[in-house]
Amino acid sequence: MKLTAMLEQQRERINLVLGQQLDAQASAAGELKAAMRHALLLGGKRVRPFLTYSVGTLCSAPAAALDSAAAAVECIHAYSLVHDDLPAMDNDDLRRGQPTCHRAFDEATAILAGDALQTLAFDLLSQPHNELDSQRQLAMLRTLASASGMQGMCAGQSLDLEATDAQLSEADLEQVHRLKTGALITAAVQLGVLAGNDEAQQYYADFSQFATWLGLAFQVKDDILDVTSSTETLGKTNGKDEAANKSTYVQLLGLDGAQVKLSQLHQKALQALHRIPYNTQLLEEFAEQLLNRDH
Amino acid sequence: MKLTAMLEQQRERINLVLGQQLDAQASAAGELKAAMRHALLLGGKRVRPFLTYSVGTLCSAPAAALDSAAAAVECIHAYSLVHDDLPAMDNDDLRRGQPTCHRAFDEATAILAGDALQTLAFDLLSQPHNELDSQRQLAMLRTLASASGMQGMCAGQSLDLEATDAQLSEADLEQVHRLKTGALITAAVQLGVLAGNDEAQQYYADFSQFATWLGLAFQVKDDILDVTSSTETLGKTNGKDEAANKSTYVQLLGLDGAQVKLSQLHQKALQALHRIPYNTQLLEEFAEQLLNRDH
Repeated sequence: MKLTAMLEQQRERINLVLGQQLDAQASAAGELKAAMRHALLLGGKRVRPFLTYSVGTLCSAPAAALDSAAAAVECIHAYSLVHDDLPAMDNDDLRRGQPTCHRAFDEATAILAGDALQTLAFDLLSQPHNELDSQRQLAMLRTLASASGMQGMCAGQSLDLEATDAQLSEADLEQVHRLKTGALITAAVQLGVLAGNDEAQQYYADFSQFATWLGLAFQVKDDILDVTSSTETLGKTNGKDEAANKSTYVQLLGLDGAQVKLSQLHQKALQALHRIPYNTQLLEEFAEQLLNRDH
Repeated sequence: MKLTAMLEQQRERINLVLGQQLDAQASAAGELKAAMRHALLLGGKRVRPFLTYSVGTLCSAPAAALDSAAAAVECIHAYSLVHDDLPAMDNDDLRRGQPTCHRAFDEATAILAGDALQTLAFDLLSQPHNELDSQRQLAMLRTLASASGMQGMCAGQSLDLEATDAQLSEADLEQVHRLKTGALITAAVQLGVLAGNDEAQQYYADFSQFATWLGLAFQVKDDILDVTSSTETLGKTNGKDEAANKSTYVQLLGLDGAQVKLSQLHQKALQALHRIPYNTQLLEEFAEQLLNRDH
């Protein structure tokens, strides 16, 4: 199947799963559920679910396990965006071309919706699975927790806040991004492998490295787009890194240097992929498209 | 062992475990970790860990499993307090006689610290355990998730926000409290049972009911203390329910009516406990002390 059709199919699939999971959760709090729906279902590229599904399929993972895993990763991603957009954090009004959660609802509801989205992620991953070994399921839970919390995404966001108005070295900037966005992208891939068969586990490190380089490259591309793309195309406020006085790859390496860095990371990602004896063409095409996107 | 000595011993134990767990987590983000430590380790009655330890011990649960479970519940409780205290929520400056997390640090760091504390809870519960069946471990994860998220605590907090300036019926008020504080207190007890031996599982419903009534009684007592106790004794701002125009049992039933309600709930809790053929004297004494406390 062509990449475009596959992306569309998996985007529809994850939107269906996320909607069903929200519907399946009884909640007395209608406002909270509406805010969670707003955060989860108003668009998004669904990069992480695509990775979980694609890698998981290569690793012969059962479909139901991939649904939960992809939905869990997307819940973590969505919660992080809701909290990141809050006035006390990035203070953003627009996300995916829509009002941010605290704009569409209010701050308190947005804080709670983010909190409950995080809980939902762990709820989804801990649901009973006939086809998934429970030890493997616990490993998936640990992987997601480790990528999300004080050793992963939250640490990256905290370092990012501390780095405002500071000039970071390239190594420090890389650490921020590895934690802030890379950890969850890597977890999306790792969950796909962990849901897979026993044979696939021997390529866990290669898949992880592919994800690490892809994640970093994705961030370099983000920095480039922040200065080259318009707010309209981006669906979120552009030029905000410079306005917030944050270190970026463009500011550190120049626009040309950032392009070179992007290519290098892209190559490293492909090298890791080539060590895996499965048909990884779809993942290659995806990386190609992700790193050449214009928004 | 006498209750007071046992409470002190378990408080020391949970503080030690929480400190060790924080130390064991490598984090590049020092500020984040410091804020988490502030939220986790500056006092607190440790009601929920006491319940997990005491019930778990009655159910012959392995000590290491109870450490993780009690720590996980307390991480969820601590994160909820940090987010609840934020300016957009209750806007509180004092907690346990200390500056609230966003006062001691800043709002962004407090949001992230709360987020990472929630993650830590699920991280702790998913760690490998030699003595705990992995199916049982997954059930513990589901129990905590269900009590914390959109079906539990977060729903209660959202309903509580919606109820500001509204006159709730007693049934609606009970629902708010069942979700907002009751769900996690019940989970603390349920995790103790789930970590226990097979025989203990048949008393899961009785233990759960004990916890439900105790949790509600605890909240009624809280409402009573909010009007009868001073800020100094309470360690947090008193009279804040009235100031925030929130429905309380005292406002709904009067001070005497709230006392009667408290006694009724206390009796129901004891009745549930008496259906369990273990030595529940310590839990009875604990309920007695908790519901007669002056702060």
